[in-house]
Amino acid sequence: MATDEVILLDFWPSPFGMRLRIGLAEKGVKYEYREEDLRNKSPLLLQMNPVHKKIPVLIHNGKPVCESLVALQYIDEVWNHKSPLLPSDPYRRARARFWADFVDKKIYDIGRKTWATKGDEQEAAKKEFIECLKLLEKELGDEPYFGGDKFGYVDVVLVPFYSWFYAYETLGNFSIEAQCPKLIQWAKRCLQMESVSKSLPDGEKVYDFVLQLKNRLGI
Amino acid sequence: MATDEVILLDFWPSPFGMRLRIGLAEKGVKYEYREEDLRNKSPLLLQMNPVHKKIPVLIHNGKPVCESLVALQYIDEVWNHKSPLLPSDPYRRARARFWADFVDKKIYDIGRKTWATKGDEQEAAKKEFIECLKLLEKELGDEPYFGGDKFGYVDVVLVPFYSWFYAYETLGNFSIEAQCPKLIQWAKRCLQMESVSKSLPDGEKVYDFVLQLKNRLGI
Repeated sequence: MATDEVILLDFWPSPFGMRLRIGLAEKGVKYEYREEDLRNKSPLLLQMNPVHKKIPVLIHNGKPVCESLVALQYIDEVWNHKSPLLPSDPYRRARARFWADFVDKKIYDIGRKTWATKGDEQEAAKKEFIECLKLLEKELGDEPYFGGDKFGYVDVVLVPFYSWFYAYETLGNFSIEAQCPKLIQWAKRCLQMESVSKSLPDGEKVYDFVLQLKNRLGI
Repeated sequence: MATDEVILLDFWPSPFGMRLRIGLAEKGVKYEYREEDLRNKSPLLLQMNPVHKKIPVLIHNGKPVCESLVALQYIDEVWNHKSPLLPSDPYRRARARFWADFVDKKIYDIGRKTWATKGDEQEAAKKEFIECLKLLEKELGDEPYFGGDKFGYVDVVLVPFYSWFYAYETLGNFSIEAQCPKLIQWAKRCLQMESVSKSLPDGEKVYDFVLQLKNRLGI
């Protein structure tokens, strides 16, 4: 592995980018972090992800892997000497993939609506957001992590959104912790790990970013 | 494997259900096919997929696997004695997962717009649909299958939509073959395999179904 060249094209508030930062940290992979300006994307980003033109992109020895769930599984398969993320049992793997897919289909879009909409639409978004988190809390059950005893794939996939919770709560005027206390306990447990704490920005910094974004979008 | 009980909750025109039919046929797995009435879903479907309440659901020895890409990977991992669908090389696996995800994010929704919209919106949908297929055609390149020499994961994921092409073309008044001839050649190549031909309904039957759907939806 000594000759591996690993580059991550990323943007600091991206929960999708955070997944790869956590995955690489869990595996102990050294990499070059390159911050992208999404309003002026680099030629490298456009070349490496011509289909979606989005971050994050993991570039391993010159070859790109795009889409965060795909790249996270790639990281788990290539650097398989430590910290396995997906379970080895096929049924538990399927279950982990199902919940990762659920997070991808729901949390970002609905989370966005908690601050990007108003009135009834915002109230409905807040309600739906909590319903989704409650389903996740139910899946977590009484285990310390979604991976069971160990921090795993679904933990990596979901925990980045915790860095956005302060923005959601402040701009949406609601408390996630009051309704999903076990999920917040889980997030705080994850944050005790260096791989997570070093990969997630501070909630207030994300809040400032969202304020700027709202301003720029005129909403 | 003698005691395996496999049940597939499905709906015949579903391209997502067809994926699992093809996957199970490729692996030689015997299963019980149960047709669902989506306007009157069975208690079993609601019990087995309480989150999304959608078909297909693969039930293996009483345990459900939901979401077609998750279930297809499960099939590939559990019945790994024959017809591997995903490549063994991590980079090629990532690439296959990327294109399967692309199909999931684009083809169904944009394909639907080719018959469910009118005027400029329909023209834009037809253009975008062809652009997506051209990207897929480019990924196929000069290989017989997306899996290279062998029929594989992306082939299983994409080929079900071929059974909808006649409906798209007829209702959208455009020719896919004229613009993506290599992709159509690929689809016809896939259909020479019994696992595919037995799993896909006839294009005219799907067309009749879409006509009824349009009528029911008042569009």
